[in-house]
Amino acid sequence: MRTFKELSELRQDPVSRDWVIISTGRSKRPEAYKSANRAVQDTALDVCPFEDPQKSGNAKPVLVFYKPDNQDWSVQVVRNKFPIIAGASCSLEEQRGPYLIKPSAGYHEVVITRDHYKSLAQLEIDEVKQVIRAYQARYQSLKKSSCVNYILVFHNYGREAGASVLHSHSQILALPFIPADIRRSLEGSERYYTECGRCVHCDILAWELKEKTRIIFENETMVALAPYAPKFSFEIRIFPKKHQSCFENIGPEEASDLAEALKISLAKIYHALNNISYNFFIHTSPAGTFENHSYYHWHLEINPRLNIWGGFELGTGGDVIAVDPDEAAEYLRNIKI
Amino acid sequence: MRTFKELSELRQDPVSRDWVIISTGRSKRPEAYKSANRAVQDTALDVCPFEDPQKSGNAKPVLVFYKPDNQDWSVQVVRNKFPIIAGASCSLEEQRGPYLIKPSAGYHEVVITRDHYKSLAQLEIDEVKQVIRAYQARYQSLKKSSCVNYILVFHNYGREAGASVLHSHSQILALPFIPADIRRSLEGSERYYTECGRCVHCDILAWELKEKTRIIFENETMVALAPYAPKFSFEIRIFPKKHQSCFENIGPEEASDLAEALKISLAKIYHALNNISYNFFIHTSPAGTFENHSYYHWHLEINPRLNIWGGFELGTGGDVIAVDPDEAAEYLRNIKI
Repeated sequence: MRTFKELSELRQDPVSRDWVIISTGRSKRPEAYKSANRAVQDTALDVCPFEDPQKSGNAKPVLVFYKPDNQDWSVQVVRNKFPIIAGASCSLEEQRGPYLIKPSAGYHEVVITRDHYKSLAQLEIDEVKQVIRAYQARYQSLKKSSCVNYILVFHNYGREAGASVLHSHSQILALPFIPADIRRSLEGSERYYTECGRCVHCDILAWELKEKTRIIFENETMVALAPYAPKFSFEIRIFPKKHQSCFENIGPEEASDLAEALKISLAKIYHALNNISYNFFIHTSPAGTFENHSYYHWHLEINPRLNIWGGFELGTGGDVIAVDPDEAAEYLRNIKI
Repeated sequence: MRTFKELSELRQDPVSRDWVIISTGRSKRPEAYKSANRAVQDTALDVCPFEDPQKSGNAKPVLVFYKPDNQDWSVQVVRNKFPIIAGASCSLEEQRGPYLIKPSAGYHEVVITRDHYKSLAQLEIDEVKQVIRAYQARYQSLKKSSCVNYILVFHNYGREAGASVLHSHSQILALPFIPADIRRSLEGSERYYTECGRCVHCDILAWELKEKTRIIFENETMVALAPYAPKFSFEIRIFPKKHQSCFENIGPEEASDLAEALKISLAKIYHALNNISYNFFIHTSPAGTFENHSYYHWHLEINPRLNIWGGFELGTGGDVIAVDPDEAAEYLRNIKI
């Protein structure tokens, strides 16, 4: 029997300059894919890996928040038992044929909330605020690592959004490269700043706050809106009203306002679209570089997954938008939660 | 009851510069999404819209190929009854707030093969060649239209790849903009050409044909390989060995060789991965511009859909590659079909 080769490295496509993670460590031999069960399984309470994370073989949490009565934990962050990327030593890129490669190095953490059945939409705002504070605290800690170039915070909810475990959780990936989608957002923002001398996101916000038709929710410091040119039908983006480049620098009041805007947006989607699957991401400035990203304006994107992505969506990078964002915003604005 | 506003236009995101298609014509009011059945339905023979396309309300085909005995059609191309994009009049872009917009204009056609149950992997090579010739003939016709900037040829196979009709079919979209994924491929190829004075795809092919470990199939003019930095596990790309910028200029021998490489690649995936869902695309030079795209090298990408795309995949633009491309190629090379 031939030996299975374990491989863990990063490879850059010389055309797109996107970095690809090759990680065969948790994988099977190619033959095993013939009969692999590819269905995503909901995880019942008694076999849930996040109901009692340490009993399920996870190491001690790297961060814990407790409930007000201190009787139980409320949010905990653990290292992912099956990390996409791991390793602390970063070395230089090298050339192999027409490709750049570098060793895989980074961190993959999971942010778990206590209740097996409750999504973020169903938690109290104070509990969502603990999740936001957990993102922020881990961000500030991970950005100190010398290999880390970008910290990707995201959340998958539901089968169609790629969630493999039912129990609500978010993921934090500290990566030695900037993910493709973020890199394009940064490059586009920098280009606009160079050409127009202003932040493109501030210009969009000023226009949206004047037009008002696509605003879904706002409070003192945050605004949730339906983008005028969305990537997903019923997409929602949450921005700080004031220009701010780095998510990790938000203050306590902004964290509360973000928690409120996020909880309300997710609850509106839940009620409006019959418990639809969704992903959300934080788009923020790269970590751990000395470059100036003051042109960037961090924000959070919520992507409802109404459609399976086929050839059109993969090719153009988004849904055909079947609902006018003005109508989507009006509908979501009027949903009572 | 308020009136439902029909909207059909293109909007450019000022950050990414990606164009978004807003098309609410075949849609429902936002409220209807609450209870919408989002499952993709397989279509049984007796309700199949492509078994007898004209009986199902499609207009006369724009192209037909017949079986050798002339008793029945073999491949036909019809206008899509529910086009993503339609309209022949193209006008200039205009500014609306920070966004560029333009009217929707283009063509959406469907390439149908005769047999309800047979995928392209199961057809004879001569039948697949008719499909390739249909792509090419429609491409050459559609590129004459003045609004058309890119012609996207793609194929969705299976639920997980977004196919909504079981009966095998491909789609041709003649668009007034270059889709995001293609634009990045063109820009990256041009940058490499400017920097290195050579075609990046020719450099990749020369290296792969020397290394040999990732070659899956080759004939006189075409080569099918597992990319060294793939976007999908078990991805296959088919390239013409000789530098060629425009798919539509292939000769009869190249069309036969492409049909053979495509049929064999799809059949290998079918057997290797237990009838996995997949998309394939043709990446080629833009149509209808006077720009020189001689730096580009057209190719066909086959994307098996092993995983549901969650936050990581949407953010980075690809799967975590769980199978070493060398091992994937060896496995696929050895599959007997």
